[in-house]
Amino acid sequence: MNRKEFRDLASPKAAREAIDSLSLEGGIDRVSLENARGRVLVARLDAELDVPGFDRASLDGYALRARDTFGADEADPAQLEVVGAVHAGEEPTIDVADGQAVEISTGAVMPSGADAMVPVERTDMDGDEVLIRTSVAPGDNVMFAGADVAAGERALGPGTTITPRDIGLLSALGVDEVPVRARPRVGIVSTGDELVRPGEDLDSRCGEIYDVNSYTIAAGVEDAGGEAVLYPHAGDDQAEMERVLREAASECDLVLSSGSTSASAVDVIYRIIEEQGELLLHGVSVKPGKPMLVGRLESSAYVGLPGYPVSAMMVFRTFVAPAIREAAGLPEPKAATVSGTMARAERYGEGRLRLMPVGLVQNGDGETLVYPVDKGSGATTSLAEADGVVTVDPETDYLEAGESVTVDLFSPDVRPPTLLGVGEDDPTVNRLLDRLENPRYLSVGSRPAVRRFREGVPDVAVVAGPLERDLEADELGRWSREWGLVVRAGNPHDLEGLAELVDRDVRFVNRTTDSGLRSSLEAAVDDLAADHGTDRSDLVDAIDGFDLGLRAHESPARKVIAGDADAALGLRETADRLDLGFVSLGEQPVRVLASPARADKESVRELAAALKEPPTEY
Amino acid sequence: MNRKEFRDLASPKAAREAIDSLSLEGGIDRVSLENARGRVLVARLDAELDVPGFDRASLDGYALRARDTFGADEADPAQLEVVGAVHAGEEPTIDVADGQAVEISTGAVMPSGADAMVPVERTDMDGDEVLIRTSVAPGDNVMFAGADVAAGERALGPGTTITPRDIGLLSALGVDEVPVRARPRVGIVSTGDELVRPGEDLDSRCGEIYDVNSYTIAAGVEDAGGEAVLYPHAGDDQAEMERVLREAASECDLVLSSGSTSASAVDVIYRIIEEQGELLLHGVSVKPGKPMLVGRLESSAYVGLPGYPVSAMMVFRTFVAPAIREAAGLPEPKAATVSGTMARAERYGEGRLRLMPVGLVQNGDGETLVYPVDKGSGATTSLAEADGVVTVDPETDYLEAGESVTVDLFSPDVRPPTLLGVGEDDPTVNRLLDRLENPRYLSVGSRPAVRRFREGVPDVAVVAGPLERDLEADELGRWSREWGLVVRAGNPHDLEGLAELVDRDVRFVNRTTDSGLRSSLEAAVDDLAADHGTDRSDLVDAIDGFDLGLRAHESPARKVIAGDADAALGLRETADRLDLGFVSLGEQPVRVLASPARADKESVRELAAALKEPPTEY
Repeated sequence: MNRKEFRDLASPKAAREAIDSLSLEGGIDRVSLENARGRVLVARLDAELDVPGFDRASLDGYALRARDTFGADEADPAQLEVVGAVHAGEEPTIDVADGQAVEISTGAVMPSGADAMVPVERTDMDGDEVLIRTSVAPGDNVMFAGADVAAGERALGPGTTITPRDIGLLSALGVDEVPVRARPRVGIVSTGDELVRPGEDLDSRCGEIYDVNSYTIAAGVEDAGGEAVLYPHAGDDQAEMERVLREAASECDLVLSSGSTSASAVDVIYRIIEEQGELLLHGVSVKPGKPMLVGRLESSAYVGLPGYPVSAMMVFRTFVAPAIREAAGLPEPKAATVSGTMARAERYGEGRLRLMPVGLVQNGDGETLVYPVDKGSGATTSLAEADGVVTVDPETDYLEAGESVTVDLFSPDVRPPTLLGVGEDDPTVNRLLDRLENPRYLSVGSRPAVRRFREGVPDVAVVAGPLERDLEADELGRWSREWGLVVRAGNPHDLEGLAELVDRDVRFVNRTTDSGLRSSLEAAVDDLAADHGTDRSDLVDAIDGFDLGLRAHESPARKVIAGDADAALGLRETADRLDLGFVSLGEQPVRVLASPARADKESVRELAAALKEPPTEY
Repeated sequence: MNRKEFRDLASPKAAREAIDSLSLEGGIDRVSLENARGRVLVARLDAELDVPGFDRASLDGYALRARDTFGADEADPAQLEVVGAVHAGEEPTIDVADGQAVEISTGAVMPSGADAMVPVERTDMDGDEVLIRTSVAPGDNVMFAGADVAAGERALGPGTTITPRDIGLLSALGVDEVPVRARPRVGIVSTGDELVRPGEDLDSRCGEIYDVNSYTIAAGVEDAGGEAVLYPHAGDDQAEMERVLREAASECDLVLSSGSTSASAVDVIYRIIEEQGELLLHGVSVKPGKPMLVGRLESSAYVGLPGYPVSAMMVFRTFVAPAIREAAGLPEPKAATVSGTMARAERYGEGRLRLMPVGLVQNGDGETLVYPVDKGSGATTSLAEADGVVTVDPETDYLEAGESVTVDLFSPDVRPPTLLGVGEDDPTVNRLLDRLENPRYLSVGSRPAVRRFREGVPDVAVVAGPLERDLEADELGRWSREWGLVVRAGNPHDLEGLAELVDRDVRFVNRTTDSGLRSSLEAAVDDLAADHGTDRSDLVDAIDGFDLGLRAHESPARKVIAGDADAALGLRETADRLDLGFVSLGEQPVRVLASPARADKESVRELAAALKEPPTEY
């Protein structure tokens, strides 16, 4: 397994240079005006005609010879013979001579002989004649041919990212198709027998997981201005993997694969690139993201991304997206950075460049606190809970709480959440959150929530079950939830309470000790032990499955559905929702607590207002 | 024509309220994961499964019982029997008992009996046994089922605009289709006999112009998150117009038309909305944009935009785009505003809210100067030369030079140009500009350029022909261009110079007096008059077409091609490019002048560097 230990890691700079040395550019597309928005013009576009193409009346009124209006005013109008009319879209058939006028519509062609026009508001009709109550100079109220754009003028420069306003210019020039940079075609190859495409059935027993990277990377490619092409999943079959890789390389400007976690896939890809292409770089001194390949295959560029979704996305964003954007001709995205202070100390000392996903929250003074988001390297979902990235130098091995850092937002559109809540996973909380604008809630459980709340990062904590008395917090609201044992429909084991879990051969599924539900269960076990005069630990040992707990409110119940357990710690609401049976063990309070320092935050006040309404309607 | 005089204009606020009272919302679309990026989730999405779905090895190594490693370290390893292997994507077939270990791959299912794993780096093989050189606790290097997301957890809230990171979360949950807000369907109806679709032939003689509004408004609709539907051009045929309007209303959430300049179209639309729908508002106190209709037709909302492209776009942007964005569920775009100071005074006193398109330029001190962009109400192209909008209160009738204003950029992506140049329209300048990053050049002609340059707005001026001596400027570069008469190929009139224009029956096309070419021509006429001992004005009167001039360098030559003239003032380069004949009248210098105060701007230095290379290669 030595192959996977990267002894000579390239520097991030070298990795960037390697990717820059690849050519990702597509060719030229010709797109219709309707599809031109956001595309990048390949070459300068000069006007091929005058706009307008004729001398044009700017208003409704009368076309005439300016010298005929000399001295005219309200009191002493000039009197001209009306010899005809011209409307927009008509060719004038009449010449205007001295003493004559022609009725003309906005946008119509000025008839020959006329050199100015007077708007209808400054005139009166008098039989076949018109009284002109103002004097005008030659050219007044006329837009001359080419006044807007003239033939030969430079209209749009090369590299212009076409906006709706540019489309206005193009259509005025009659251009219905423009040459734009082709979007770099980026093939995405997924490997690994354990990966299943979303929408298909998953067999967790044999370790199958849904393919995350293909879809996130594809979305990232499109975000960066590329065109993503998903190739059929190649599994771990070597011949098939090679076939798919080569097909992608022959059809795309860049091929991305994300390292399968199975060793054979890495082997095959490594071998194909090395033998049949060119391997430029293997392994980069960055975290996450160490296992990265850069090379060429056929006429395509190739980058191998790490297998873990968070790592793959961070490496893609840092090294690959800028290259795609460059090849697409798009400008660097506007710097979207936020300054903030570290909400807590962060230690790190591996000597690699660190790309640290972080979340943002405003404290009561409107300052931005920055906290690392890390659910472990295998986590697929951390980035959905993060707002941006703090880049930490290899030399920095410690960030202090309160230290200033700069956060690169994932995109300029990112809106950090208005409210940061932590706490119990609870269906009522879920509905409550739906009524708020852009909240973030980390369902870490009641006990960790109290710890984080004390550390001063979140705005609110939701705590179920018993509460530590010395917690300094405003209670914004509370409700009560019924908890107990979730069992199969009809309660086939005739469970009545905890006692049967001890006495009978019943497989139980618990929640983790982080949860408020577990706290209430533990208290009930203590009571049962006292009632029976037995030792608590004996009781617990007798419950099959007591020690292992699941993290969220529905997970245990789903084990019952799957037939892996007979009874699960859970809520009546969950049992009802999933059509399961329920044995009530009690009620517990759920409290929504706010940090007094955040009481004046708008989002906290909105939450308090939402809590005033009955919880059933959340 | 009284109908078109809006005596009771609604306030901008009332117009906003009228549009808000319309319902533009589409329904719900179900889109695949590949198409979900940027769409807006309709409802909360809870996790329907645990991620991962099984207890998962985080590294390559050995699954074992933690208690078997108690006390193990480098010097004194624990020795365990290796009883099998589990790879990613496989169902474990072996249980791990005391004293046993199973080889395991990253991502593989933990075999039953094992409660921890040790990475391969901390182990050594010894025959069929493995030496474990570290001690671990239960759960070490294992990611438990649901640790990432657990069934029942709130995954994404309603109203989430789906990012690539959210797509990661969705795919991890196996979701391959999500319910999103349908994009509001916006029908675009164009009317008016004079409008021709880009790509088709244009007959300028009868006042035809290309349809600009349909395409810019469509692009604006897409920008705001709507789906634009272009309906066939209805011309001025009343029955056809009504048919198209009703068809659009029955198929769309919103119908937009832009007022044809021909009175009949306005009549028809007004009548249809009033008789068969509901007219909420007619005429708004805003400039540009007064003639605006708001109403309903069939089950659709209807907004009638002004006919002039700049007006239509400003009204669309101010009143319609926010409503589309709201209906699409998209958040207000991030405020993209720039503060700057007015580059020159601007007077305005019509008592209407004014939406003033402006361009931006940085002066030598890095301050942003703001200048109004206005090529007249009929101009189609002004907005392509503008960066944003300054909104001026109805009460404000004068903005002083140097006054602070806030500019709303057209979009957060707008990058104001790095260089602002004004001056002669010249093909060498056009090529030169291609070599700069994001320049803006207004080809106003040499004489207006000098005036604007004195006012201190542009960075550089390009002046052709004689130069006023007292102009304080750095000359960044210059070249010479050959000018004269552009004639038909083969010079059928055998012209040799200006004299034949005077003596023969030759139709001539001039340039405007703004151009440097015209200045050199005027000087040549003076010389000819002196040579012949005749009066200059007699000479000029004898040249057919001398008094009227066209604005850009190629326009006169194109009149020769069109057969409207026999000789045109122009450049040898133009004649060569268009395969026309040329009679040289001389050479004139073209100078690129920079304001000394802007000498240190990076873009000015880049221009100076570009000018160092021979102009033929520009």
